[in-house]
Amino acid sequence: MVASTGTKIHEYYMRMALSMALRGTGRVSPNPRVGCVIVDYGSRGGRVVSCGYHKKYGDAHAETNALRNAGGSVAGMTAYVSLEPCCHTGHTSPCCDALIKAGVSRVVIGMSDPDPRVSGKGIAAMSSAGVEVIQRVLENECRRINRGFVKRVTEGRPWVSIKAAMSLDGDIALANGESKWITGGPARRLAHLMRAENDAVLVGVGTVLKDDPMLSVRDSDGVSPMKSVVDRDLKTPPEARVLSEGNCVIFSGPSPDESKFSSLLSRGAKIIKMETDAEGRIPPGGILREFASMGVNNLLVEGGAGLVSSFVKARAADEFSLFVSPRIMGNGIGAFGGLSFELMNGTIRLKDVRYRKIGEDFLIKGVPECSRAL
Amino acid sequence: MVASTGTKIHEYYMRMALSMALRGTGRVSPNPRVGCVIVDYGSRGGRVVSCGYHKKYGDAHAETNALRNAGGSVAGMTAYVSLEPCCHTGHTSPCCDALIKAGVSRVVIGMSDPDPRVSGKGIAAMSSAGVEVIQRVLENECRRINRGFVKRVTEGRPWVSIKAAMSLDGDIALANGESKWITGGPARRLAHLMRAENDAVLVGVGTVLKDDPMLSVRDSDGVSPMKSVVDRDLKTPPEARVLSEGNCVIFSGPSPDESKFSSLLSRGAKIIKMETDAEGRIPPGGILREFASMGVNNLLVEGGAGLVSSFVKARAADEFSLFVSPRIMGNGIGAFGGLSFELMNGTIRLKDVRYRKIGEDFLIKGVPECSRAL
Repeated sequence: MVASTGTKIHEYYMRMALSMALRGTGRVSPNPRVGCVIVDYGSRGGRVVSCGYHKKYGDAHAETNALRNAGGSVAGMTAYVSLEPCCHTGHTSPCCDALIKAGVSRVVIGMSDPDPRVSGKGIAAMSSAGVEVIQRVLENECRRINRGFVKRVTEGRPWVSIKAAMSLDGDIALANGESKWITGGPARRLAHLMRAENDAVLVGVGTVLKDDPMLSVRDSDGVSPMKSVVDRDLKTPPEARVLSEGNCVIFSGPSPDESKFSSLLSRGAKIIKMETDAEGRIPPGGILREFASMGVNNLLVEGGAGLVSSFVKARAADEFSLFVSPRIMGNGIGAFGGLSFELMNGTIRLKDVRYRKIGEDFLIKGVPECSRAL
Repeated sequence: MVASTGTKIHEYYMRMALSMALRGTGRVSPNPRVGCVIVDYGSRGGRVVSCGYHKKYGDAHAETNALRNAGGSVAGMTAYVSLEPCCHTGHTSPCCDALIKAGVSRVVIGMSDPDPRVSGKGIAAMSSAGVEVIQRVLENECRRINRGFVKRVTEGRPWVSIKAAMSLDGDIALANGESKWITGGPARRLAHLMRAENDAVLVGVGTVLKDDPMLSVRDSDGVSPMKSVVDRDLKTPPEARVLSEGNCVIFSGPSPDESKFSSLLSRGAKIIKMETDAEGRIPPGGILREFASMGVNNLLVEGGAGLVSSFVKARAADEFSLFVSPRIMGNGIGAFGGLSFELMNGTIRLKDVRYRKIGEDFLIKGVPECSRAL
């Protein structure tokens, strides 16, 4: 049928596969989120036979789940997969083999595997087995939901989102440090959802000392991410709430105080000793490499101003999510107060800017216009 | 006809009268903007016979123009007027008399005259002459287009809009003063249109010295407003561009330097000597009273940070129009850097916040939540 093999219908089912993939959010890292939909074009107009997605790291992949959910033969049918099926044996056997063995006649793929060492091998394996392969359907959308995975696999660092809650005039606190609450409940709930969409959340130790945040997902559904603190001198108090749920990583300087080290260790923290630069700071680049090696695809940097500024200065910010409260706070603590520029051309311009109302506040999202040079 | 006398149809014609009224923008102050539509309900469904508006200060009022434009008898017809017709003789004879004499059987009014000394007198005069009067049709909309006039007449000061062009993080310039250009062409064109919608534009002398603005309407249609500068010590250079087109008022301290005074006077500036407060500043309250006495209904305060902060601090800001460029400028000069607060509850919260995209930038408008206590 001509209509059923047109671009539109492929996009339709790929969108379905994408929405399946999203169900794995927070549970599959360092793997990508993948969804699969099996469609039978034998009957008139196409009929969805089964869906599947990668549910949890270590468990079955999307294709295997979809094949299992079909509950019968899928011979001659079409499989839609948001990411090129794997052809190597990891925790699970290769998905290519499973699809070939099941007898599907066509596989529609959203994007090829971003890992240059295996990219295209799954496609080649299926093609040479006589399976028709259609590529790059909704490729941008497929890349987008795995942008962190792509970045880690291709650049050895996670996708970094900078989050801040600030006033119309860019303050994250009054001059005396007061900051509760700049934004309202709906914005804070969405901020918790953002945590659930990231594998790790990072703050500076100043934020731990001032706000004592848990950095967990409480006000929305989802899995709490890894918590992490940049804390050169291990000033994080052992009773800090960021340690209360475990899964906390602290980036210290190269030779931290021994008693503080063991005290935090006994509270369950993982402490990673980092080199410091000439100014005694731990550079963002090193932190990002550590995160990548821990399998973190998506990192949310929540503040404060010093940490955020150091990431922006190092061109290590991939996206900004700024919650803006419609209030004027005057001469307070600026969200990006650690940055200074000599020329308007040097300032950080955002592109692809989107904004929307969240309760009384609004959310501005954008990505830096200039390419990163980390 | 029932349908033609319902609320909806009155609102329909009142909206037409409002759109007529807006044509007077920039030319009628200190008078209000008023529009009039004459409708003949004798034929089926109602038929617009004529329209009119107040075109220019000193010229005929909206009602007179509409009656004249009818070109014949309007006896038995309905007149829609956005503001209660006047009953006193000023530059022109009373509009009430004209409507009564013309024999209209009904007058539909948007809002009564805000001046408590004359409010309702026009309505009473027409009622006692046997004309049916319907009031408060689209009253909010009618008040809105004359909010400056209402404020001046009832409170003795103009409506004050604060305009700023700033970065996402609230800076109006880099630390070294560089500010060209924060926002793009479309935002600057809209900013010029805002000037045309105000009777006067006010800046601090710092802005004159740094940017040498003309404060005129060039990049959009409309009439250039009165230009004005708060300049205690008369630092405005005689060659400043703000003086180049005339119609410039300078607010100086009580005893300015004589030679500077006469030099600026010879350049056509009007200089108003003002008292200063304990800190040597000219208080916004006094400036606003001067504007009101000059017939300024709508004032646009364009900066810089010091002047804007003094107006906000004095609760003399009725509305904010903030052009926000999607860029991060870091530790620059904050738009409201002259303000500081001890408590989050004390910060200036905006309500009725609207935002829209203007080219690459966006415009955030809102009014302060707390009532003014000027």
